[in-house]
Amino acid sequence: MLAQRMQHLQKSFIREILKVTEKPDIISFAGGLPNPAYFPAAQLADAAQKVLLGDGQAALQYSTTEGHPPLRRYIANRYHRFGIEVSPDQILITNGSQQGLDLIGKLLINPGDPVVIERPGYLGAIQSFSLYEPDFRPVPLLADGIDLEQLASTLDAAPVKLMYTTPNFQNPSGLTYSAQTRAKLAELVGDRRLILVEDNPYGELRFTGEHQPSFWNLLPDRVILLGSFSKVVAPALRLGWLVVPPALLDKLIAAKQAADLHSNYLTQRILYQFLQDNDLDAHLQTIRAAYKRQAELMVSMLEELFPPEVKFTRPEGGMFVWVTLPEEVSALALLEEATRQNVAFVPGQPFYVDGGGQNSLRLNFSNADEAAIETGMQRLAGALKTVLAKR
Amino acid sequence: MLAQRMQHLQKSFIREILKVTEKPDIISFAGGLPNPAYFPAAQLADAAQKVLLGDGQAALQYSTTEGHPPLRRYIANRYHRFGIEVSPDQILITNGSQQGLDLIGKLLINPGDPVVIERPGYLGAIQSFSLYEPDFRPVPLLADGIDLEQLASTLDAAPVKLMYTTPNFQNPSGLTYSAQTRAKLAELVGDRRLILVEDNPYGELRFTGEHQPSFWNLLPDRVILLGSFSKVVAPALRLGWLVVPPALLDKLIAAKQAADLHSNYLTQRILYQFLQDNDLDAHLQTIRAAYKRQAELMVSMLEELFPPEVKFTRPEGGMFVWVTLPEEVSALALLEEATRQNVAFVPGQPFYVDGGGQNSLRLNFSNADEAAIETGMQRLAGALKTVLAKR
Repeated sequence: MLAQRMQHLQKSFIREILKVTEKPDIISFAGGLPNPAYFPAAQLADAAQKVLLGDGQAALQYSTTEGHPPLRRYIANRYHRFGIEVSPDQILITNGSQQGLDLIGKLLINPGDPVVIERPGYLGAIQSFSLYEPDFRPVPLLADGIDLEQLASTLDAAPVKLMYTTPNFQNPSGLTYSAQTRAKLAELVGDRRLILVEDNPYGELRFTGEHQPSFWNLLPDRVILLGSFSKVVAPALRLGWLVVPPALLDKLIAAKQAADLHSNYLTQRILYQFLQDNDLDAHLQTIRAAYKRQAELMVSMLEELFPPEVKFTRPEGGMFVWVTLPEEVSALALLEEATRQNVAFVPGQPFYVDGGGQNSLRLNFSNADEAAIETGMQRLAGALKTVLAKR
Repeated sequence: MLAQRMQHLQKSFIREILKVTEKPDIISFAGGLPNPAYFPAAQLADAAQKVLLGDGQAALQYSTTEGHPPLRRYIANRYHRFGIEVSPDQILITNGSQQGLDLIGKLLINPGDPVVIERPGYLGAIQSFSLYEPDFRPVPLLADGIDLEQLASTLDAAPVKLMYTTPNFQNPSGLTYSAQTRAKLAELVGDRRLILVEDNPYGELRFTGEHQPSFWNLLPDRVILLGSFSKVVAPALRLGWLVVPPALLDKLIAAKQAADLHSNYLTQRILYQFLQDNDLDAHLQTIRAAYKRQAELMVSMLEELFPPEVKFTRPEGGMFVWVTLPEEVSALALLEEATRQNVAFVPGQPFYVDGGGQNSLRLNFSNADEAAIETGMQRLAGALKTVLAKR
């Protein structure tokens, strides 16, 4: 009975792993969760009171597909601070940026269309796009961003319509595109007819290094931006957004309307009230400082406790460190031993649509305090020792 | 650049009409909105306080794709009261039932698949399904439900995979399937391999007549139920649900995960708290009593002020009355005159995927108090008089 497109969809491997991590006493670096210690629950409670008691009838009614206009203006203004000129009219509020990915796939991908993704690539994008049956063309990530040589030959080989990137602190690798890579990529794309997606859920979580330019300015009218409040306020709100070139806007709104009429309006109102009454920058400073400490501790323990043949990224922001084991060591075998020693992570394999990555793994540092990172990384080093001894 | 499926999608005609109705002084029977006078804003504010101050860290974090387990149990228990045995495990929380429709299309429809819908049919379903490029097979609605003779020949003509119904107080017609029509329909479907969707957003809004049996019991393992809190609590929460046969569950959850990870968890928690602390049945009684008064007033004014050649339905619940003008009178022409006289409605045409319905229109009675209905219907009668005089 199922539609053809559903044949491609697997139950998420990560979901299965997360079940393992639910056993008590386990320290999990597996999930991609922000640290709940920094969720502004009391401030959101105040905002909810104001909205529901002050304007409850309107805030509980059906609303526009595009999203709450003042919230869209707020987002546009925030972009302006980073030199990105977008109009509030180009912004569509979505149910987290995951829905943005689904809408992009729906809008643009025909079965068989070549779609460039990073290798390793973000699993959420792989899952959403998969349902529209693209022909994925993974291009490897290097230390300073996507491999431009490989990208050039991929773009020459087929008429690529869509290219998906996460240039800041990528999930899963933690890598960031350098300014040079961005400029060269834009040059390479030149006037090819393709849409480049810049997914940027962690952009405001930079804790070291310098802000890098957006593709929005490098490739005018051919970039879709994706953003999210999940990592800067709270994920349960399910509020993200798309910024799209004007030519795509009407069809995108129609697709969103068909998908769910509009995003949760009450929550949009509460979030906007929260943003009016609180200093988001001060809040972000707190999160950044905490994640910096956590990331630095995790990296320093990788340096100290792990053999030099183990390689890892040094993220400048975001939530993840990417670890590469010696080629013959399986991350799945390590996971088995690690869970025995009460620590968990996500093996790298599912991030590769074309196989590979067996010796890689993703560590999340955002959702663990320093004590947990200390103990967890000791356990992980112990587990690796056991696995390496069996070689 | 657009995907093939997007060619089918039009900007909603109703959206354009709703813009007209925004002018001040207009009385609108156009939207499909519940009456905001009955939104429980203060009670939801209390619930929000409890959730955010009592368990904010958990309530603001990522959550499960299926939805908040206690809320799913609550929904299952409510079905049990109507003799419908479903397990909470079969329930998936969606962003309003509109998302349920999109997920059904994604899960089941291949391009060209024959899909039965009612004629006139619910626009939201037509829009969602359209994106999966079905071959719609509209079957007319009669006073007591779908035309069984036409349905029989439609099912014989092609291997129908999916059949979409709204058996209670349908949108747009306000019609309800009789018990006999339901039984005969189930017989007719027999052991054909098809999935029947029973969309029931207004089921709890019956203000006269007797509750009718669900297809869930008549066609075991072949029915998908759709439900929503939009009309019984508030639409801005964007919380609806799907109940699916076990065989479809895993793929459906995977599709939902790809679509947006999960529905707004904070709102699920707030809604569940509200349902714990308040008497939903008492709340529903208030809404039903109000809608009954409003519907009866609208129908009585149709009887008194409109010529006998104008036909209309007499809904037993829900939010809509369907009006059929003399065949040669265009509802679009009436709308033009009506907006001039400061009253609005939705013309019937967009509810017909195969054309037709030019002389029909939908009136919403839920989102207008009795004074507005009185004045608005007088204006509409005046507008019709003007249009009829031009014949």
